[in-house]
Amino acid sequence: MSDKVTVIGSNLPNIPWEEKPEGCKTVVWRSARNPIIPRDLLPDSNSIFNSAVVPFKDKYAGVFRVDNTARQMRLHSGMSEDGVNWAISEKPIRFICGDPEIGNFVYGYDPRVCRLDDRYYVTWCNGYHGPTIGIAYTYDFQEYRQLENAFLPFNRNGVLFPRKINGKYAMLSRPSDNGHTPFGDIYYSESPDMTHWGCHRHVMSPVGGWQSTKVGAGPTPIETSEGWLLIYHGVLTSCNGFVYSTGAALLDLERPWKVLYRTAPYIMNPTALYELTGDTPNVVFPCAALCDAGTGRITMYYGAADTVTGLAFTTVDGLVGYIKSNSI
Amino acid sequence: MSDKVTVIGSNLPNIPWEEKPEGCKTVVWRSARNPIIPRDLLPDSNSIFNSAVVPFKDKYAGVFRVDNTARQMRLHSGMSEDGVNWAISEKPIRFICGDPEIGNFVYGYDPRVCRLDDRYYVTWCNGYHGPTIGIAYTYDFQEYRQLENAFLPFNRNGVLFPRKINGKYAMLSRPSDNGHTPFGDIYYSESPDMTHWGCHRHVMSPVGGWQSTKVGAGPTPIETSEGWLLIYHGVLTSCNGFVYSTGAALLDLERPWKVLYRTAPYIMNPTALYELTGDTPNVVFPCAALCDAGTGRITMYYGAADTVTGLAFTTVDGLVGYIKSNSI
Amino acid sequence: MSDKVTVIGSNLPNIPWEEKPEGCKTVVWRSARNPIIPRDLLPDSNSIFNSAVVPFKDKYAGVFRVDNTARQMRLHSGMSEDGVNWAISEKPIRFICGDPEIGNFVYGYDPRVCRLDDRYYVTWCNGYHGPTIGIAYTYDFQEYRQLENAFLPFNRNGVLFPRKINGKYAMLSRPSDNGHTPFGDIYYSESPDMTHWGCHRHVMSPVGGWQSTKVGAGPTPIETSEGWLLIYHGVLTSCNGFVYSTGAALLDLERPWKVLYRTAPYIMNPTALYELTGDTPNVVFPCAALCDAGTGRITMYYGAADTVTGLAFTTVDGLVGYIKSNSI
Amino acid sequence: MSDKVTVIGSNLPNIPWEEKPEGCKTVVWRSARNPIIPRDLLPDSNSIFNSAVVPFKDKYAGVFRVDNTARQMRLHSGMSEDGVNWAISEKPIRFICGDPEIGNFVYGYDPRVCRLDDRYYVTWCNGYHGPTIGIAYTYDFQEYRQLENAFLPFNRNGVLFPRKINGKYAMLSRPSDNGHTPFGDIYYSESPDMTHWGCHRHVMSPVGGWQSTKVGAGPTPIETSEGWLLIYHGVLTSCNGFVYSTGAALLDLERPWKVLYRTAPYIMNPTALYELTGDTPNVVFPCAALCDAGTGRITMYYGAADTVTGLAFTTVDGLVGYIKSNSI
Amino acid sequence: MSDKVTVIGSNLPNIPWEEKPEGCKTVVWRSARNPIIPRDLLPDSNSIFNSAVVPFKDKYAGVFRVDNTARQMRLHSGMSEDGVNWAISEKPIRFICGDPEIGNFVYGYDPRVCRLDDRYYVTWCNGYHGPTIGIAYTYDFQEYRQLENAFLPFNRNGVLFPRKINGKYAMLSRPSDNGHTPFGDIYYSESPDMTHWGCHRHVMSPVGGWQSTKVGAGPTPIETSEGWLLIYHGVLTSCNGFVYSTGAALLDLERPWKVLYRTAPYIMNPTALYELTGDTPNVVFPCAALCDAGTGRITMYYGAADTVTGLAFTTVDGLVGYIKSNSI
Amino acid sequence: MSDKVTVIGSNLPNIPWEEKPEGCKTVVWRSARNPIIPRDLLPDSNSIFNSAVVPFKDKYAGVFRVDNTARQMRLHSGMSEDGVNWAISEKPIRFICGDPEIGNFVYGYDPRVCRLDDRYYVTWCNGYHGPTIGIAYTYDFQEYRQLENAFLPFNRNGVLFPRKINGKYAMLSRPSDNGHTPFGDIYYSESPDMTHWGCHRHVMSPVGGWQSTKVGAGPTPIETSEGWLLIYHGVLTSCNGFVYSTGAALLDLERPWKVLYRTAPYIMNPTALYELTGDTPNVVFPCAALCDAGTGRITMYYGAADTVTGLAFTTVDGLVGYIKSNSI
Repeated sequence: MSDKVTVIGSNLPNIPWEEKPEGCKTVVWRSARNPIIPRDLLPDSNSIFNSAVVPFKDKYAGVFRVDNTARQMRLHSGMSEDGVNWAISEKPIRFICGDPEIGNFVYGYDPRVCRLDDRYYVTWCNGYHGPTIGIAYTYDFQEYRQLENAFLPFNRNGVLFPRKINGKYAMLSRPSDNGHTPFGDIYYSESPDMTHWGCHRHVMSPVGGWQSTKVGAGPTPIETSEGWLLIYHGVLTSCNGFVYSTGAALLDLERPWKVLYRTAPYIMNPTALYELTGDTPNVVFPCAALCDAGTGRITMYYGAADTVTGLAFTTVDGLVGYIKSNSI
Repeated sequence: MSDKVTVIGSNLPNIPWEEKPEGCKTVVWRSARNPIIPRDLLPDSNSIFNSAVVPFKDKYAGVFRVDNTARQMRLHSGMSEDGVNWAISEKPIRFICGDPEIGNFVYGYDPRVCRLDDRYYVTWCNGYHGPTIGIAYTYDFQEYRQLENAFLPFNRNGVLFPRKINGKYAMLSRPSDNGHTPFGDIYYSESPDMTHWGCHRHVMSPVGGWQSTKVGAGPTPIETSEGWLLIYHGVLTSCNGFVYSTGAALLDLERPWKVLYRTAPYIMNPTALYELTGDTPNVVFPCAALCDAGTGRITMYYGAADTVTGLAFTTVDGLVGYIKSNSI
Repeated sequence: MSDKVTVIGSNLPNIPWEEKPEGCKTVVWRSARNPIIPRDLLPDSNSIFNSAVVPFKDKYAGVFRVDNTARQMRLHSGMSEDGVNWAISEKPIRFICGDPEIGNFVYGYDPRVCRLDDRYYVTWCNGYHGPTIGIAYTYDFQEYRQLENAFLPFNRNGVLFPRKINGKYAMLSRPSDNGHTPFGDIYYSESPDMTHWGCHRHVMSPVGGWQSTKVGAGPTPIETSEGWLLIYHGVLTSCNGFVYSTGAALLDLERPWKVLYRTAPYIMNPTALYELTGDTPNVVFPCAALCDAGTGRITMYYGAADTVTGLAFTTVDGLVGYIKSNSI
Repeated sequence: MSDKVTVIGSNLPNIPWEEKPEGCKTVVWRSARNPIIPRDLLPDSNSIFNSAVVPFKDKYAGVFRVDNTARQMRLHSGMSEDGVNWAISEKPIRFICGDPEIGNFVYGYDPRVCRLDDRYYVTWCNGYHGPTIGIAYTYDFQEYRQLENAFLPFNRNGVLFPRKINGKYAMLSRPSDNGHTPFGDIYYSESPDMTHWGCHRHVMSPVGGWQSTKVGAGPTPIETSEGWLLIYHGVLTSCNGFVYSTGAALLDLERPWKVLYRTAPYIMNPTALYELTGDTPNVVFPCAALCDAGTGRITMYYGAADTVTGLAFTTVDGLVGYIKSNSI
Repeated sequence: MSDKVTVIGSNLPNIPWEEKPEGCKTVVWRSARNPIIPRDLLPDSNSIFNSAVVPFKDKYAGVFRVDNTARQMRLHSGMSEDGVNWAISEKPIRFICGDPEIGNFVYGYDPRVCRLDDRYYVTWCNGYHGPTIGIAYTYDFQEYRQLENAFLPFNRNGVLFPRKINGKYAMLSRPSDNGHTPFGDIYYSESPDMTHWGCHRHVMSPVGGWQSTKVGAGPTPIETSEGWLLIYHGVLTSCNGFVYSTGAALLDLERPWKVLYRTAPYIMNPTALYELTGDTPNVVFPCAALCDAGTGRITMYYGAADTVTGLAFTTVDGLVGYIKSNSI
Repeated sequence: MSDKVTVIGSNLPNIPWEEKPEGCKTVVWRSARNPIIPRDLLPDSNSIFNSAVVPFKDKYAGVFRVDNTARQMRLHSGMSEDGVNWAISEKPIRFICGDPEIGNFVYGYDPRVCRLDDRYYVTWCNGYHGPTIGIAYTYDFQEYRQLENAFLPFNRNGVLFPRKINGKYAMLSRPSDNGHTPFGDIYYSESPDMTHWGCHRHVMSPVGGWQSTKVGAGPTPIETSEGWLLIYHGVLTSCNGFVYSTGAALLDLERPWKVLYRTAPYIMNPTALYELTGDTPNVVFPCAALCDAGTGRITMYYGAADTVTGLAFTTVDGLVGYIKSNSI
């Protein structure tokens, strides 16, 4: 049928999945098992959230943001048979890096993981005289080799595309400042070698409503016949602070800085108690999405209230259709 | 008896009502059915709150603040048999206006409705190069004719008196600025024709405690033998943002900018979970009050956490007595 | 000739005048006698600036902003034979007012004077629970009768048009907040009776450059065949504070909220030492302009650095031509 | 055994106590009866929290922060048989003071109580042209004699040591500013007479994580063979406001401004719903600790969400061990 | 005559003096030799200002604020034959102090010098984990012995009285915060021993106009038959920053926290180019005043624009008369 | 002699030069002809400052920041026979660029020019959805070809090194935010191709005093036998805004992010009236330095008060000696 969207990706028939509940009117729905990762899963974890998960061999692997009880922000490896029940390493990742000035770990948060070429790249908000985008790769989620930081500070939410575009690596990011940045646009950058980046292009700015303060890329974009499917977060500033919601967009396949469609409404916003209360009330923040190319099922992993991790579900057809019919 | 207060108004024996619970020590009590309007009553509603209800024929009608899932602020009509279960139109109100510069709807929120002369006037916070007070009237809650904005920006919480005073229309309002205004007094203004306004008088300023940051009028004032009964909101600034509580005052009948009594304590504050959590935690915000002149029963409609709508109850005798014995 | 602009106004052949200096490239030029009014002209004046002057009989009269050495802001009457040498009353104006709540003088600043009907109206920034627009009138610059404040707080820079427009009095003003407002647009309002105001229309917003923070009307608009000639101030925020410059615009004669032309460049900015230093460095702020209809000569009175008063000159033909050829 | 810590203090075998729950991994655990004091225990109490409790005769006595429904901050006496169920006086404490300028009560909050010499000293945040440290003493929790304020404004969290050190009274405090201070270190001061204070020494500053914005002393320090055991609060600033957690330190016995050990992790943070929601979400704030010298049991009283009072438990051995092995 | 004011102090017939210029209308007048100390008097001085001078033997001695070209704030000794031409030591003062934690010099600024008992006390804004009031004494302006800091941070403008009052040393100070404090009142504190301070009393708050943001004591108060003559600074916040002016007050002789009279107008404000421009434009800031008891002549030393030092003159009779007739 | 510093560069015996004035104690001295470029050199220039000059053929060429009277920031070419008297083009530079998204000029300011390879590179603060570093090159100062922006926004003060280092182009820059950034460090980045940049290294942070708020590179670094001679600006925040001074440092030749020496004092600060007053008071801001390798003479071009351009002089030996003996 004409509105069937093709996904360029692998079949992942075993990703965690729950059918849409009876009567549910929204394009995204939550897992009944939420939060799937509690804040105190590890002996000294304060919170586990804003984390990235990928299929790995016949299981699932991930890089998790674990803030410990000193409220230090660390990255941990995790493994899961089913994508729902996770074994997370008690020790933070120790990146291997030739240059101690870069390899000296200060803090790391909000990781993304992207299968690219023959390896898994991790990008995260890396402390180096301010937050910037750290890059590392792993083959096995045990040993991680750290590369140069992609950009100058201040930057957050660096998200790689899962293939080279026009012969170069491509990354979305959100330049910011040194605090709780009250602004933020998404930009696109290219690299011939994963080390030097340039050809920066503006992708999207905040607009009104739930995405009026800042926007930032979420999971690795999903390649579809309709464009790159980008799930992103947007922030509204209430008189009592930030509210983080989630939207989605379609980007041009070859010139991804061209936004084809973008939702005026959010597709998910904080409504569950574990999203409304916690270390940062009123946050839903997706960092990973598993997509089964065969069925178009999408399973999102998102941080809730900067405290726990939840699952939410949608479908490619459903979401692409929603984006197109609710575009700004 | 001497402390029996006379209400100048209609008998409304059928307004929603629940008796004060056993052991309840407060002058205002909540409905056991709260929140009576959930945030997702409409297919694309993010929240329904800070709304205005009046008796209409043998039913109830209202103008509702509905923020949609794009977080755009819109006004919707609603009807109810019992004042508790509401049918709210899925489409926002389209105001009829001769001048497109005024009639062009940008945003509207926090409506009030006031029966005056032969019609129902709606006043709301209307976006016109900043927030100001929009005015419209309806006979049937289907067709609304929009008049000129009452004031220059920046203004919010415009509340009409239900009759002319000294031959002129009268309105309370709260001048503000262009953001989450951290100040705010209530003023009184007069108009011969509902279009030109003047003779502005200062009514009340913030004082300490729960009303130390700003104050604003709530429902249409209720005329009583003791003065205009004004229910209003007050805001305290904690280190984690604003807290909206509710108080009450008695204003001079002929010179309503003269405050006769005003509660030092609040009469309602955020304590229920649906008031403590939501899009804006810690908000109770009344915009309408139905009063049965015969019994003195008062049923308040209030927004909770900028997310849902609740009901609360009191009596004229109880509230007037409380105001007088707890006045600043 | 086709570019000769007609002024609808009186011949004032004796207004202060100095020819444009040799080699001067700008459309406005300063008086060689500046500052014409020093800060300490009165025994207890801290500064005399942002003041309004009109022809009066065969002399000139004015209302002056005089901040005394307590830094209280007061209004004083002044008289001059030649418009350059001024005798300013040592006592502030005591407005006559029926209602003590309005007549109680708190502070007053930045007056404008407008000949209208049979009298001279004074409008100024008047302290009434915040700054708003005060209105009074005088026949003789000795006795002033105060009317109701035009608007609710917070407002500044109220400037009357010198005739009724479409049968109503008309005023420009700039709504603001309760401090050193970092925003500000010009609006237009109408009144049938100089007491009640409505039909508010947005006139102009800040745009880039010298007028990027806020804009406000300056002298009484001058009626010309090309439209109302409005001289206004604009503010830029540097890292070291506000810079006040001056621009000009032409407004539609019958719908003055329609801007026909508006200068992208300023026509005057702070460059003289008495403009660069003083109580508020980097301010030129015109509040009055005398125009000789016969020759089109314009003499502007402007405050410099919130400290002293200067004169500057231009011509109607020159300025209107400049506006049209340098419009945004 | 070598890691047995000796407490210099009284045996208090009857303090409220609950054993550590099965499987609990943390050094501090909450009472299953929390919150032990609800916000509306008194007829006009808005909240009861941040309060101080001591053994008194064979019972327990305390000074409680009670914010009334006007949101005025008051101090009330309380008595309890078991330390869990409290009878709190409905009337605020009226301090007896020779000098009305000092004795005039403006506001008081966050009291501490310290047995010292033959009496009970109360210190609290006292309003005197800004917040400062008030001091009073009582023998019976009925009559309180107020002394001079210890310091100039602006100061909060004044906590006395339970004995003279080097012949002088000693107090910790946290200088601040006149609002929701976004900074704050702990200092130590000495007094020969409880009236004049000097020899001020810096004790500790904020460091990273949960204690990155400010720190302040909590309960009266507990004297142990390992040093003064100080439980303190620390604040982190999220994009949605302050988060108050609790840590602990060991101070040198004779030079208590020397920090021997200090926890990098918190020992308690907001996780229960009554800590996550309320008048100030995300607050745990201990103000008192009962310690049984014989067993080393510690029972902490802490304010939750600036709304209610909770109990939490730990042991001297456990806590001292935790401090030493998790020190910065 | 009845308005002759007696000064309790020494005859100092040789203090620098210039007669009031012809036509000068103000109560204070500047030296024609201003600035008497240029910013670059020392090889590496950036600025020399806000400094304190006293009669010393048959000469004058002083402690000077010298900011070096690194913009480090240091204190230097100076000597002068005539009080106008100064030899300032190129080396900063090295205070002798028993406790290195206190004696470790971080920064020092805005010194005052007060002859008291048999020595000269220096008080200054001393950096110790924030600004507080340092105290030292000298007999010869060569060797300075440092005592304990008087107060906890944050404090500035500590000014001693020149004799004990009611048997105790007395000091004025201005509690502040850790930055460019936008508030500030004057308080009074007592000490039995110059080390421990208490019995803090509020003296004066900002009021309107030139002293609306903060106020702070200037030179050592002068004892007169009419009360303590206090010269102080006040600050107004313009849209382009702070403006520092100077006022004067009379304080009760035995209870100096009681203000008898206080000028509504300033007595000096920034008007000279060296006051209007420099490192901080628009500052006059007096820190010392020499008074000849015999004639009542007063010579003030003041910092101009935080850059240079100027002299200004007045008389006790003139100033006391002005204070009384221009009091708030 | 041992302290003779070798410059790796060209002999430029004809650069503008004035001998150090008699008695001048500072390492840098100003031109007696300052300001050499007045603000109104062009018919519609508001100010000309923060501009870059290089030797070009037997003359001097430059790229000038010209803010026009609309206060739009533009770049203009200029030519001069002597480096003092400049002919600046009345038209702004129109960059030639293949991609209109990059080539679309929004604003440009604070240019630097660097001879590198066979051409002159211009770097400037370029408006592209926020300020970033624009790059272009020219052979003749008539035709400029624009390349990709070097970095993501927000960035300012991009300064190229005059040769490749370790085989790659090298640039200093100062990441910032979207306003009057109150922070700023200098970073170093590398590029193989002038398009893609990476290997970012931190160079220096603000320290105390005149350089406590932010620091940024000034002219193209000068290669010497002692290291790269970097002249840079530093900013102090007074209560009346920013103060821009100038310092100098020596950077390691092969690893220029290693700071060998850095002046604790400034080498130039605002003291002349044209530096103290203007559009931004208290600014000296060098953007270019001509160095004659033979004599070691250095002629600096600097913006004064964001209004005019001045010249200042020093020598390599003098400055390098000063840096070494006054290093932090």
